[in-house]
Amino acid sequence: MTESFDLTPFTLQGKRDLAALVALESVSAQGRMLPETAAAVTRLLEAEGFTVRQYPGQVAPLLVAEAGEGSSTLLIYNHYDVQPEAPLDLWNSPPFTLTERDGRLYGRGASDDKGEFISRLAAVRALRARHGGSLRVRWLIEGEEEVGSPSLAAFVEQHAEELKADGCWWEFGGVSEDGRPVVSLGLKGIVCLELRCRTADSDLHSSLGAAIDNPLYRLSKAVASLRDDSGRVTIPGFYDGIHPPSPADSQAAAALPDVRGVVQQSYGVRGFLENADAGEYNRRMNFEPALNVNGFHGGYGDAGSKTVLPASGFVKLDFRLVPGQEPERIVALLRAHLDARSLHDVEIIELESHEHAARTDVGHPFVQAALQAARSSYGSEPVVHPSSGGSGPMYPFMQHLGVACVAMGIGNVGGRVHAPNENIRVRDFESGVAFGVAFLEQLATGR
Amino acid sequence: MTESFDLTPFTLQGKRDLAALVALESVSAQGRMLPETAAAVTRLLEAEGFTVRQYPGQVAPLLVAEAGEGSSTLLIYNHYDVQPEAPLDLWNSPPFTLTERDGRLYGRGASDDKGEFISRLAAVRALRARHGGSLRVRWLIEGEEEVGSPSLAAFVEQHAEELKADGCWWEFGGVSEDGRPVVSLGLKGIVCLELRCRTADSDLHSSLGAAIDNPLYRLSKAVASLRDDSGRVTIPGFYDGIHPPSPADSQAAAALPDVRGVVQQSYGVRGFLENADAGEYNRRMNFEPALNVNGFHGGYGDAGSKTVLPASGFVKLDFRLVPGQEPERIVALLRAHLDARSLHDVEIIELESHEHAARTDVGHPFVQAALQAARSSYGSEPVVHPSSGGSGPMYPFMQHLGVACVAMGIGNVGGRVHAPNENIRVRDFESGVAFGVAFLEQLATGR
Repeated sequence: MTESFDLTPFTLQGKRDLAALVALESVSAQGRMLPETAAAVTRLLEAEGFTVRQYPGQVAPLLVAEAGEGSSTLLIYNHYDVQPEAPLDLWNSPPFTLTERDGRLYGRGASDDKGEFISRLAAVRALRARHGGSLRVRWLIEGEEEVGSPSLAAFVEQHAEELKADGCWWEFGGVSEDGRPVVSLGLKGIVCLELRCRTADSDLHSSLGAAIDNPLYRLSKAVASLRDDSGRVTIPGFYDGIHPPSPADSQAAAALPDVRGVVQQSYGVRGFLENADAGEYNRRMNFEPALNVNGFHGGYGDAGSKTVLPASGFVKLDFRLVPGQEPERIVALLRAHLDARSLHDVEIIELESHEHAARTDVGHPFVQAALQAARSSYGSEPVVHPSSGGSGPMYPFMQHLGVACVAMGIGNVGGRVHAPNENIRVRDFESGVAFGVAFLEQLATGR
Repeated sequence: MTESFDLTPFTLQGKRDLAALVALESVSAQGRMLPETAAAVTRLLEAEGFTVRQYPGQVAPLLVAEAGEGSSTLLIYNHYDVQPEAPLDLWNSPPFTLTERDGRLYGRGASDDKGEFISRLAAVRALRARHGGSLRVRWLIEGEEEVGSPSLAAFVEQHAEELKADGCWWEFGGVSEDGRPVVSLGLKGIVCLELRCRTADSDLHSSLGAAIDNPLYRLSKAVASLRDDSGRVTIPGFYDGIHPPSPADSQAAAALPDVRGVVQQSYGVRGFLENADAGEYNRRMNFEPALNVNGFHGGYGDAGSKTVLPASGFVKLDFRLVPGQEPERIVALLRAHLDARSLHDVEIIELESHEHAARTDVGHPFVQAALQAARSSYGSEPVVHPSSGGSGPMYPFMQHLGVACVAMGIGNVGGRVHAPNENIRVRDFESGVAFGVAFLEQLATGR
């Protein structure tokens, strides 16, 4: 990209496109305006020369778009659905009206994921205005991401030929407080479970606890047996088969900034497991699987005391997995672990679909191309997370398409994604368009 | 008592008295009609020759009544307050209208404890009609029992001289399905606690569980560490100083009927700790302390999954204690136990007032007098519980008055005490009056 190429008209058009897209209330959890939004996205893509195919999903249509020719193919993954806007009264401007104030654009989906999609579309448009390009761009846009992408894995497998590419630009990304691009090259896997225990049909007087077992003790014993104080999971076999991070990945994680102070300040966190220093914190967040107790409920919960022996209780758990860990195997290991501790009476309920972890090595040429484009467009060294601590449907892309994945985009630390007053910074949107141009150009020219 | 003494007029008068007393809505938890009910009780007692003194309590007046002379003194303990009547729509007749149907008398307080009080008053009246009696009867009647008797322990200590007696007839009791009188000679102590743990000021995304601790794991570890699978409490020192049951008490417990089938059928209980047989079940219920988890709450509890790392959680516990265990010492032992397991971050909150256990040996002459009266009036062998599995304010009576306590009365297994459709069987009320006459006569004559 030459210095003289002015992107202003394309970012302005992008803001108008984003306002129109935010106005469509595409809340997948509530099935609102999903076909309309798919149609609007289709029109935007067709206007830029894409051919768009629409496929039925379980909740909303999936779109596959394609444009361009060339020796190299880029797959872009985005979604057009958004989280519910509730609670409405905490918004400072209407959630479905893109509103600019103090250098930010507010609205549901402004960041996640309509802002990402539109910034990339603006880059495609700018590059198209400049020259035809020798890059094939394939775009997979779903409308079910906020409800767990129930159709995606099977769709990617069935449409592998149609989606084949040299690399995949993942749907999210961000810019650090000090303006550095934040890149993620992986996502952890996840298994969400419920543990249930019932020792009677109805609650009993707690005096009977002298002779009758307590389901909340049983569940506590189960939970306490799953990890130790350091956070290490104590289920036999849990760590078997894990792919250790490459030296380059480890080096990248070690170079990550120390965010412990920010986390501690934002959430009032009392401390970190094993008093982790910055290096250990980042190692854990990138490479360590984890067990989390999301909720534990049973028996009396109001003020004061009630001498009841509850009939039942339940615990909600999630395991965050790393590459090499099979979700179904983790469930089987958990069952064996509970049985070995005579916790046959603790039932395991599998919640939602599990996800495998996925991680692209930082040394992959597609990653290096993205980082080079980021350096040139942002003028600073990217912050590279070998893996996000979070989860998402990246594994099917790696499994069925064999494709490297790079998450890179326009989010910001105060972006309030999924919350009221979701926003992006205008300058991040502009930088995102510039990065997109540089990235596409780099892939097209191989420079 | 001679066979020719017809109690019918006294039981009829008793039913009228009970109807009048049930009509007074003396709900202590809601502060309803407590002085009015104290006044009505006072009038009933004064009509039978008692002098009644009224003392202020924290919630309701305490009454101390006295009548009669003799070498022997009986203390009777009852209460005139009742549990709230809600939920009203589950009552088949108005809760404050004593209603007879199918051989039962329904109404709030019909059993607990207005029915008990009135059945004993009817016995006093019958005996008074027959002869003056050579027994001093002292009666302590409070109006705060259903809110935990907050004034009682200090009152008993301060009024020890006024309440001194050779034995105390405790406020409750019952008749088994097959018509045998059910006697309890003790109550377990109780300590109600809340455990709290907070690891952050606000909830976090569960991906941070790789590096930040989880309060529900901390609490699970705490709970799991407090007992083993057999129900034995694993807090060091917990069993120190316990007074073992006397051979006579052990023998009485061993003679108790096997109620496991009834418990299993009533509540759908899956099993008993250590597959207890009848003897072990009764030993545990009478003589074993226990730890119960009343409730455990924290984090997400609705349908499906939510990948949250909760900021905090809490657990509600009760310990049932036996004679020799000091409630305050148990709390201190628990603190030391948690600290020894690096659970300094688990806070202990003491709920309500603790109670010591109390138990009168089955061989005590006062107990034997009660059992003899029961045999003669019921014509069957009493079922003797050395201790109830439940708790109550019996300890101050033993500590400050040095008095033997016997719980014996008119309740029945289907009596729905504290619940809608509370009731007594008419025949149990009549038997209760007859037992009272026999008991008072036995104490008066020493036979």
